[in-house]
Amino acid sequence: MEWLGEDFLLTNDFSRELYHRHVSHLPVIDYHNHLDPRAIAEDRRYANLGELWVVSDPYKHRAMRIDGVDESRITGGASAREKFEAWAATCPRTLGNPLYHWSALELKRVFGEERLLSPATASEIWARTTEQLSGSGFSTISILRRWHVETLCTSDDLLDSLEEHVRATERAGTFRVLPSLRGDSILNFGTPSVHRPWMVRLGAVSTLEDYLSRVSERLDAFARAGCSVADHALDGGFHYSLPTREEAMRIFDDYRTGGELVAYDCERLRSYVLTYLAGEYARRGWTLLLHVGALRNTSSRLRSLAGPAGGYATIGSPCDMESLCRFLDRVERGEAMPRTVLFTLNPADNAAFAVTTGSYSQDGVWGKVQLGPAWWYNDHKAGIESHLQTIASYGLLSRFVGMTTDSRSILSFSRHEYFRRILCNWLGELVERGEAPCDMELISTVATSISYGNARTWFNF
Amino acid sequence: MEWLGEDFLLTNDFSRELYHRHVSHLPVIDYHNHLDPRAIAEDRRYANLGELWVVSDPYKHRAMRIDGVDESRITGGASAREKFEAWAATCPRTLGNPLYHWSALELKRVFGEERLLSPATASEIWARTTEQLSGSGFSTISILRRWHVETLCTSDDLLDSLEEHVRATERAGTFRVLPSLRGDSILNFGTPSVHRPWMVRLGAVSTLEDYLSRVSERLDAFARAGCSVADHALDGGFHYSLPTREEAMRIFDDYRTGGELVAYDCERLRSYVLTYLAGEYARRGWTLLLHVGALRNTSSRLRSLAGPAGGYATIGSPCDMESLCRFLDRVERGEAMPRTVLFTLNPADNAAFAVTTGSYSQDGVWGKVQLGPAWWYNDHKAGIESHLQTIASYGLLSRFVGMTTDSRSILSFSRHEYFRRILCNWLGELVERGEAPCDMELISTVATSISYGNARTWFNF
Amino acid sequence: MEWLGEDFLLTNDFSRELYHRHVSHLPVIDYHNHLDPRAIAEDRRYANLGELWVVSDPYKHRAMRIDGVDESRITGGASAREKFEAWAATCPRTLGNPLYHWSALELKRVFGEERLLSPATASEIWARTTEQLSGSGFSTISILRRWHVETLCTSDDLLDSLEEHVRATERAGTFRVLPSLRGDSILNFGTPSVHRPWMVRLGAVSTLEDYLSRVSERLDAFARAGCSVADHALDGGFHYSLPTREEAMRIFDDYRTGGELVAYDCERLRSYVLTYLAGEYARRGWTLLLHVGALRNTSSRLRSLAGPAGGYATIGSPCDMESLCRFLDRVERGEAMPRTVLFTLNPADNAAFAVTTGSYSQDGVWGKVQLGPAWWYNDHKAGIESHLQTIASYGLLSRFVGMTTDSRSILSFSRHEYFRRILCNWLGELVERGEAPCDMELISTVATSISYGNARTWFNF
Repeated sequence: MEWLGEDFLLTNDFSRELYHRHVSHLPVIDYHNHLDPRAIAEDRRYANLGELWVVSDPYKHRAMRIDGVDESRITGGASAREKFEAWAATCPRTLGNPLYHWSALELKRVFGEERLLSPATASEIWARTTEQLSGSGFSTISILRRWHVETLCTSDDLLDSLEEHVRATERAGTFRVLPSLRGDSILNFGTPSVHRPWMVRLGAVSTLEDYLSRVSERLDAFARAGCSVADHALDGGFHYSLPTREEAMRIFDDYRTGGELVAYDCERLRSYVLTYLAGEYARRGWTLLLHVGALRNTSSRLRSLAGPAGGYATIGSPCDMESLCRFLDRVERGEAMPRTVLFTLNPADNAAFAVTTGSYSQDGVWGKVQLGPAWWYNDHKAGIESHLQTIASYGLLSRFVGMTTDSRSILSFSRHEYFRRILCNWLGELVERGEAPCDMELISTVATSISYGNARTWFNF
Repeated sequence: MEWLGEDFLLTNDFSRELYHRHVSHLPVIDYHNHLDPRAIAEDRRYANLGELWVVSDPYKHRAMRIDGVDESRITGGASAREKFEAWAATCPRTLGNPLYHWSALELKRVFGEERLLSPATASEIWARTTEQLSGSGFSTISILRRWHVETLCTSDDLLDSLEEHVRATERAGTFRVLPSLRGDSILNFGTPSVHRPWMVRLGAVSTLEDYLSRVSERLDAFARAGCSVADHALDGGFHYSLPTREEAMRIFDDYRTGGELVAYDCERLRSYVLTYLAGEYARRGWTLLLHVGALRNTSSRLRSLAGPAGGYATIGSPCDMESLCRFLDRVERGEAMPRTVLFTLNPADNAAFAVTTGSYSQDGVWGKVQLGPAWWYNDHKAGIESHLQTIASYGLLSRFVGMTTDSRSILSFSRHEYFRRILCNWLGELVERGEAPCDMELISTVATSISYGNARTWFNF
Repeated sequence: MEWLGEDFLLTNDFSRELYHRHVSHLPVIDYHNHLDPRAIAEDRRYANLGELWVVSDPYKHRAMRIDGVDESRITGGASAREKFEAWAATCPRTLGNPLYHWSALELKRVFGEERLLSPATASEIWARTTEQLSGSGFSTISILRRWHVETLCTSDDLLDSLEEHVRATERAGTFRVLPSLRGDSILNFGTPSVHRPWMVRLGAVSTLEDYLSRVSERLDAFARAGCSVADHALDGGFHYSLPTREEAMRIFDDYRTGGELVAYDCERLRSYVLTYLAGEYARRGWTLLLHVGALRNTSSRLRSLAGPAGGYATIGSPCDMESLCRFLDRVERGEAMPRTVLFTLNPADNAAFAVTTGSYSQDGVWGKVQLGPAWWYNDHKAGIESHLQTIASYGLLSRFVGMTTDSRSILSFSRHEYFRRILCNWLGELVERGEAPCDMELISTVATSISYGNARTWFNF
């Protein structure tokens, strides 16, 4: 097989035809990412590849740390050029890591650069891309257009202004930029130093009821701005202990009047509010994304140097499946269950999560509970393949809503191509091994649904 | 490779010769399933494919739920024809799931049907199979004979009559139908509303000693009826805390006189009685099957609609290995350890369980502790392959007792063929890659032992 | 592919060239094993293959137990010849297990024996190898020289004499034998019957401070003897709860004056001393090896028959990732973090551990936290491949310090060849599938670094 050629990752005839004829040209729906809507609204430009590609990419930072690069040239005071060069030295050592594929793919697709980044090529690539970035076709919107984006959803705090999305959509012209709710602030009772000021910004709150009704007003504002997706990161294993309404009110009062909650009360209050929120999302026809299993408090040192999303998070212990199921059962019993996408950072959970997609259902709604695509550190070739195998084996692959980048970078949309090639190859291999009939109509339906159609229908975009 | 042809799943010459010459014709021993012995004794007939195939298959129900089918057409009031048609619509969307293979294989092997089930073929397949089912060769026993069944063990409650098995064996003629004990009722102290009436049916019980001796009498009855296998489902992670005899007696008294046990006492009483039972099984030369890791209480809604075995169970958190080993150690120390087959629903446990097969032993008894075949949701091609790889890598594949269906359906015996093809292909690939010598005698011994010989010897059938 | 031929496990041209031209001849660094330094110093000879190969190999013992061999012929009173014959009967039944490959490879590489061991060949192989073993070229040092050993590190208790290592290095001539610290005794507060006498041997200790300073003196002695590696086995899930200095002192006093520590105090004292030790290792530039996830107390029966390292250990539940990260964070905050290699026995932890290699870093130090090679039961072909895939996908494969045997046998050094072939094949397959450029310079750099160069630089050997 040719490296990075037209048939990159497509190892048999069936998959090649499947990809090139049926999948490659489909529009992209990216239902969860961390792009800055203002950067799109302003059609921001980047002076060089350091700024565009290196200075704010936690994946690269992580690899550079493992490679022993000084933090000053990762997230510290070094110039964009120095950081780019540090990355150029690390890049060849990412062989086997998705960064190697992503980097090559991004350079080739956006800049037409066929050479691999290394200390030997760094200067020339820097010079050439700097010139390109100053020309037309390399602004934020121009780059996003290259990926055939149709709709993208950024992650926004409940208190964020939603005006940028309107401006971004208008300016983009060919695609929509929608807000999606990053709901973590609402449940952040465990970090009062951050949550109390946030609560002040939310407005005068004297009871839990108040709190929830102010939250609900903001949800309405999000809905008006086109939001239909809410996301919660449930770290620390996700324990679910639902208190009664009275207990929840009492805990909230304790909290509001300045007390520090003990861990168990914090868990109970979070459980109560999450349950409430699920109902609110269901009522509005939204989708709930549950991101389970990250362990973000690893290195205090790196947290202080690189901030809360600095790329040093790791994978936590396997999920407490009983808690997860008690939560889903509770909202289902209350007829307050939104369509739900489960993400886990620990691949040891994949089978359990995939089976859970068959444990809750609703008449006439396919894929009510979904296993989300291979998430974050799992978004590499082997991870995606294992994930496809898992959904197929334990659930219904045909009903999978497909890929989203969850990324901060406009270059990461190349991962939709990456995902689609891997998907088509995986399906083609089924045929090659005689495990599926050689029926292009049947199989292209599956491939196009996962690549585009399912997300379009499911999210009501 | 040709889809579903003679060499289905056999991707190289060695595996083809291995399967066709050495394995395909071997009799089937199915040492754990949920067939109804009365249906065999009566040689029950089925009016149509809906009744035979769809209305009581929780695997299909699960897929249909993910596909958004109304529950009325899954387990509700719709007719068998309507349910069949609902399944026909979902069936093509199971591509990649074992249901796709199983369905195609069952239609082909039993009905000679080469077409895939879909809305386009549903009517014709319905008509043709309905006619076939009314003819000879399609009764319960006739269908079971197609699979070359030699012995099958149903799952029976301690209080079930065992007369049907005798009648079934007599009527079948060519194969034996044996009872096996489904022992969960004996340990069901956590659900007094079910267990107390069951205890009344067991007979007048005033002490734990009474209880155990009545249980033991029934075990004798099972033994007389040819039972040599007992099975326990240990959900909820399986925690083992053995109380003293006095404590156990006291807890039992509390329970008997109407108290609700706290969770810890319930766990201790269960641990005590399970330990007792293991000794009883060992004494009788029985095998203990431990099914660990299911999480059955997921959706209250589906439980009320579809009953306790309605296909909505999921996989629980990984097993508490320390509890499992403490249990095994305890019975081994008491010289009361039966041969034991470990099943886990969570594939993240597979390596730990496979290694545990080398942690307990008995002079002259091979495979004293076994890792059971890929169970329930794991019984798909990738799951079986990963399971074979795991047993081989961490234990002795040659001593594996092989496949059992654990199914409610007489059509599921096609899974023995499915398993054997995957096994032969897996072994053939070892040879192809130069990881095993090209020695048909050596390798066919392994393949036939796993497919038939080991179970025959091990279970004393 | 030819079984056990020149290209054993090398399935494509790229991997064959990579292995034969770049890797096969590289020296071996084995940074963690359980060889007896005295056996090397004395250049011990073995009377026969039973003594050399069977009587003290827990891997073989385990397989023989699963195979039903009487314990007398495993670890009991039978002669070396009888044990060899018992193993010869089991050996063919290890097909698919690494023992099958290891055994064939060891017989071929050391004795030029092409036949597979089985009851049919046992007598001839016994006779031939017995003769060989009496000749030159088959002493301990001669066999070790065959593997191109450059440096090996044995595992030594803090109180062990370190003189044998000097003698061994002198006598070996072509390779160095260094001590490494097996630090478990220092933390063994949970087994007072063993630890208290050990503490007496350490010297008069009246306070925790005393204890730690005596430990520190021995660390200096280890350092003078060339030690730069310390290893701790953290079984039972590794829980980390750091007490204050005062609490630790108080707990130690309770312990010293004869009290039995409750589990929680024991955990806290261990956490305190481990934290101290990490700092001591860091200060001396040593590497810390953390072996997490073994469950060694399985069968009391086998423990009494076969001793504490008798091959009946199993894999424990997944690691408590939060404890692990709290420990690493604590030592990093105290600027007392040594370079660290994480090992887990539970492959379900692999992804989490691999990601953790990017969670802690130090300017100018590459691979500060490493995922160690596939350990113990995981050291089979599929385990090594999955492990390489995991490091590559979640970390930087190029910075992996590579293989070590962790073995008690001088024959086990063949596993370096085994590992290197699998590594080269894995890399060659990347190229074959077009997932890496066909660039021998790039890829041979990765392969040789992992096989030799990284360990050499990293451990300061």
